[in-house]
Amino acid sequence: MSLTNASPEDAARAAKTSSRRLATLSTNARNHALDAIHDALLSAKDAILAANAKDLALAKQSAANGDLSPAILKRLDLGRKGKFEDMLQGIRDVRSLEDPVGRIDLRTELDSGLILHRQTCPIGVLLIIFEARPEVIANIASLAIKSANAAILKGGKESLESFKAISSVISSALAPTDVPNDSIQLVTTRDAVEPLLAMSQYVDLVIPRGSNQLVRYCQEKAHMPVLGHADGLCNMYIHSDADAQMAVSVVVDSKCDYPAACNALEALLVHEDQLETLLPAVATALIVQGVTLRCDPPSLAALTRHLPKDLSLLVQPATDADFSTEFLDLILAIKTIAATPSDPPACIDAAIEHINTHGSHHTDAILTASKAVADHFSNGIDSACKFWNCSTRFCDGMRFGFGTEVGISTNKVHARGPVGLEGLMIHEYRLAGNGQGVAMYGSGGGKRYTHRRLPLTAEAVQQNGHVA
Amino acid sequence: MSLTNASPEDAARAAKTSSRRLATLSTNARNHALDAIHDALLSAKDAILAANAKDLALAKQSAANGDLSPAILKRLDLGRKGKFEDMLQGIRDVRSLEDPVGRIDLRTELDSGLILHRQTCPIGVLLIIFEARPEVIANIASLAIKSANAAILKGGKESLESFKAISSVISSALAPTDVPNDSIQLVTTRDAVEPLLAMSQYVDLVIPRGSNQLVRYCQEKAHMPVLGHADGLCNMYIHSDADAQMAVSVVVDSKCDYPAACNALEALLVHEDQLETLLPAVATALIVQGVTLRCDPPSLAALTRHLPKDLSLLVQPATDADFSTEFLDLILAIKTIAATPSDPPACIDAAIEHINTHGSHHTDAILTASKAVADHFSNGIDSACKFWNCSTRFCDGMRFGFGTEVGISTNKVHARGPVGLEGLMIHEYRLAGNGQGVAMYGSGGGKRYTHRRLPLTAEAVQQNGHVA
Repeated sequence: MSLTNASPEDAARAAKTSSRRLATLSTNARNHALDAIHDALLSAKDAILAANAKDLALAKQSAANGDLSPAILKRLDLGRKGKFEDMLQGIRDVRSLEDPVGRIDLRTELDSGLILHRQTCPIGVLLIIFEARPEVIANIASLAIKSANAAILKGGKESLESFKAISSVISSALAPTDVPNDSIQLVTTRDAVEPLLAMSQYVDLVIPRGSNQLVRYCQEKAHMPVLGHADGLCNMYIHSDADAQMAVSVVVDSKCDYPAACNALEALLVHEDQLETLLPAVATALIVQGVTLRCDPPSLAALTRHLPKDLSLLVQPATDADFSTEFLDLILAIKTIAATPSDPPACIDAAIEHINTHGSHHTDAILTASKAVADHFSNGIDSACKFWNCSTRFCDGMRFGFGTEVGISTNKVHARGPVGLEGLMIHEYRLAGNGQGVAMYGSGGGKRYTHRRLPLTAEAVQQNGHVA
Repeated sequence: MSLTNASPEDAARAAKTSSRRLATLSTNARNHALDAIHDALLSAKDAILAANAKDLALAKQSAANGDLSPAILKRLDLGRKGKFEDMLQGIRDVRSLEDPVGRIDLRTELDSGLILHRQTCPIGVLLIIFEARPEVIANIASLAIKSANAAILKGGKESLESFKAISSVISSALAPTDVPNDSIQLVTTRDAVEPLLAMSQYVDLVIPRGSNQLVRYCQEKAHMPVLGHADGLCNMYIHSDADAQMAVSVVVDSKCDYPAACNALEALLVHEDQLETLLPAVATALIVQGVTLRCDPPSLAALTRHLPKDLSLLVQPATDADFSTEFLDLILAIKTIAATPSDPPACIDAAIEHINTHGSHHTDAILTASKAVADHFSNGIDSACKFWNCSTRFCDGMRFGFGTEVGISTNKVHARGPVGLEGLMIHEYRLAGNGQGVAMYGSGGGKRYTHRRLPLTAEAVQQNGHVA
């Protein structure tokens, strides 16, 4: 790991070069490097916390001057109970994941003695830009090494001392391993980001981990693909047949479990028939949690009729903009979906259209007793995640069982939804023959392609050069 | 299909809107539309050829004036023997492919009654830019409908009348089907391309099918991902233990079968020990086919010694630039790889480094008797396709058995190598529960995630709404 004084271009070029060496390392060699990082960080805990204390002291001063939000201060503190141990556990967790490199997912006999296979391989060089959390450096370095990708890490200025300390420990730990030192590059100056985003010859994928502003900046400036999502404007539609008790529980979880998360609920669509029955119960439960409701005229009228006066202070008229706003706060927009007679009911299409137009294609949910209605809704919605009768908050790599999460993507290519290690991989084709040329096939050649699908046996998987 | 007089923005917006309807159609509905297109084109053959004759007449005039290459003239001619029938067969072939939509490739029980699955779904709106071949419109319209993607097609100006005729037939054929008319948009003005490449809110993926210049233009201008490759600079390394007869046959096929193709060989790397033995035979076979050899000093010296004088006119000294040039012609650059003693021999690394630096990451091959050497080479090479003992010309979607080819990608994300229908798909997650919220899990909640991988049974696959 280089805490680079080199130019961004030199850092990127070095990362690219070492990415090829990294791509050839065995599972054991990469896991061994993760063990080395884990043990070195454990041994250096005191030194790292001392460096972190310097960052904290500066940050506290900035916070006192009003230049830094208390939230950032909290994220910066590596000494908080369990945080350092969580960082170490994260490295062990990544190490224990199945190796994503060299997995064969297609084998075809093109002809006798001419065998094609497709296998997973690392993407190459990742540029990962993140904000205040210093423990992310260990997390990301682990993910990169596990997936055999080189990485250029750019952290926030608030955690500079912590980064320097952690990176120096990781660098020493990697030195005696097979992982090339240049495969993890640390960049500390903000000036370096824009040039790096233009170096598509060296950087293959950008992963911003931070605010909407950061993601949007990368999306605008990057000459290479960006993995992630800018907005998380999640919607839920409550159909006419939805169960009231389930609605209360699922809506409260979706909105209140962690309102600042990208998978928190921002707009609720309610079927007209539920305005006087289910909605008042849902609204009451939300208001008890401190949620302000921004309601369209029919839902506002219903709630005004049904809620006690003292609760209705949190019930307000919605503006159009409320349905396109990611509040990230205890505010929820409520829209009425007019009842329609056809089957499947056209009102579902109205909900779909609203969500496709106003949402952010992240996670959208429906509450309904009918599988046919849920399928119709999910087929029509243009989002990464489509949930039926459960909280939007389940949209998460750990909850999905991926073992780790690189981010949540609303991209239309490569990876979509919660992204695990798989999202850091691409595939390559390998073809092995014994002297075949294409002129031997087809008209004139005489040979014919067999195109026989072959099984993906354990033996086949061992054909690749990566198995330790 | 709209032969649009609308603005590029209106065309793109209409494509986006209809893409959602298209995404919900059953396999049968999409296949039925392909049948309708096939039958209508068959019936309208005379009218289409008449329109094509108008394009040809204009093009012949341009060719006579020297404004158009004879190659374009040839590509333009739909009346050439078998070409119209091939176009129709292409539609039948795409129809017969397995439906790529709604394939479930992951099922996980997150908890009892909380089931996650991942399924394939269309990307959305494709912008496909192609040059002179008018039959491509039928091919691309078929691929788009089969994969449930909307498409905006931009053809070359030389084939305008043919495009108008074909698109009008396709439009009438689609009218009585479930496929929305707006899902295939035809754009004929060159001015429309640049604005469309900026509309990332409507266009999800750009697929340029044509010259390097076209691909590079799209890569530079597009605000959304571009699928493809600009260069096809394929290399082959002949190791010290390679068989001479195999080398002659594979090198000649790779270079001469179709020199203008992106998978044709452009540079040959030869182990030092083979300069006096194998190389003269390979060189002679190439020269007989009219190939000019651009040789580095050691290979030039060897060939000058070994070849008869009358052959050596085609043997010339190479410049550095020859090893970074995609000739697309009967020219081959030859470089010597110095012998090295270690095991695995370090000379393989020299070949790898040359190829990773000078190649285009498309298709690179090795000739060797040793599987260990081939694996070492393939692990080190940073390319979409890595071939052992066979021709680079096998890099092709049809030869790989994909049934169709959308293009060949050297991208590091999404799809790499020959791209079949699969490359027009992305995935979505669907989660079905019975009222779960995340607060029920972990500390405080009491429930625990089971994260049990479920089988991908036929029954499971039928759970999605797409099965006809």
